[in-house]
Amino acid sequence: MEQRHSSTVRRQAANPPKDSKQRILDCSRTLFSERSFAQVSLKDIAEAAGVSAPLIIKHFQSKENLFEQTVDFTVSAQSLFKGPFEQLGITAATETLTAPTTASYSIIRTMTITDGSERSLNAIGARIKRDILNVLATRIEQEAPLPYPAPELRAQAAMALLTGLSLMRRVGDTEFEHYSQEELTTYYGGLVQRIIDGRPTPDN
Amino acid sequence: MEQRHSSTVRRQAANPPKDSKQRILDCSRTLFSERSFAQVSLKDIAEAAGVSAPLIIKHFQSKENLFEQTVDFTVSAQSLFKGPFEQLGITAATETLTAPTTASYSIIRTMTITDGSERSLNAIGARIKRDILNVLATRIEQEAPLPYPAPELRAQAAMALLTGLSLMRRVGDTEFEHYSQEELTTYYGGLVQRIIDGRPTPDN
Repeated sequence: MEQRHSSTVRRQAANPPKDSKQRILDCSRTLFSERSFAQVSLKDIAEAAGVSAPLIIKHFQSKENLFEQTVDFTVSAQSLFKGPFEQLGITAATETLTAPTTASYSIIRTMTITDGSERSLNAIGARIKRDILNVLATRIEQEAPLPYPAPELRAQAAMALLTGLSLMRRVGDTEFEHYSQEELTTYYGGLVQRIIDGRPTPDN
Repeated sequence: MEQRHSSTVRRQAANPPKDSKQRILDCSRTLFSERSFAQVSLKDIAEAAGVSAPLIIKHFQSKENLFEQTVDFTVSAQSLFKGPFEQLGITAATETLTAPTTASYSIIRTMTITDGSERSLNAIGARIKRDILNVLATRIEQEAPLPYPAPELRAQAAMALLTGLSLMRRVGDTEFEHYSQEELTTYYGGLVQRIIDGRPTPDN
C-alpha cells in the first residue's frame, strides 16, 4: 500500500523514474524466467531495460535484492487452489502433475536458479508463506472445520507433498511413466485431500 | 562394475593416475559441500587436489560431469530408513525435521547449489532413484504386503512429502516454530507411515 502510494506520488512528479524502476523489474522477471541468477548479469538487465547498471543499483541496491523482488508465487497459488474445497486435492495434484516444470512461477524452478544463498532462500520462503501457505490455511480454516491438526500445519503438509512431487517431476523420476495420469491424480489428490480435510482427534 | 575393473587394471599398471582421479573426486566433494557449483572453479579443485586443471578435464571431461559424480544420497537413505518398518514414518520424519539443512547429502541442498541445467537435475534424479527410492520400494515390497498402490509409487509419495518438508525447513518456514518437535514428528511420521503401509483396495 505504501509502495503504491509512493509510486503514485512519483508518477505525478516525474514519469521516467517510476517507469524505469518498473521496466527494470519487468525485464528482470523475463530474464530470470529464461536463465538462472548466475547467468543473468546486471549488464543484461540494463540492456534489456534500456537503463544504466548504476541506475539499477540505485533502485535495487544489488542483483540479489532485485532477484528477490521478482519472486512471486501468486500465479502458482491461483492454479493450485481454485474451485470447490472438496475437489482441492484433485485440482492441486492435477496442476502439479501437468504444469510445465520450468514455469517461472514454479517453486522448484525458483529453487534451482537461485544462487543458493541464505538470503535468497529466505526470500523464497517468505513468498511461499505469503502467496501460498496463508491462502491455503485460510481456506482450510473456513471450509474444513475438523479440529486437528491446525490449519497452518495442514497447509504446510499439503504444500510439502505437492512441492516434493513437483521436485520428483523436475529431476525426471521415471516412475511417472509407469502410471496413467488418472491413477496419479487419484492417488496424490486423495493424499492431499485427506491432509487438508483434517481429522476429529489428535491422532487418527 | 566396469569402472571398478578398469580402475583395478589401472592400479596394477600405475599408481598415480588412480590416486589423482580419486583425489580429484574427494576434493570436489569437499568443495561442493562448502560452496555452490558456480562458486567452485576447476582451478579451485586443481589446487585442492594438487593436480592441473587439464588433468581434471582428462579424467572427467567437464566440471558439470565431475559435479554429477559427487552426487550421492546413500547417507541420506541410511539415516531416513533405518530400524523397524512400523517405525519408519517416525524415523524418517525425525531425521527430516532435525538433519542439518545444509548437509551435503541433502537433496534440497544439492538442488539449490547446481547450475540448474537439465543434465545436472537429471543426474540428481538418477541418484534419488538409485540411492533412495529403490531402497525404500524394496523395503515396502518385502514388509508392507497390502496391494495398493504399487511399492514404487508409495516410495515416491513418501519421499515427495519428506523432500518437500525438507524444502520448507530450508526456506525458513516460520510455522515450525509454533509446534513442538514431538507434535511435528507425530503428525508427519503418521502421514509417511500411512503412505508406505499402503491399503487393501485401490481407493480408500
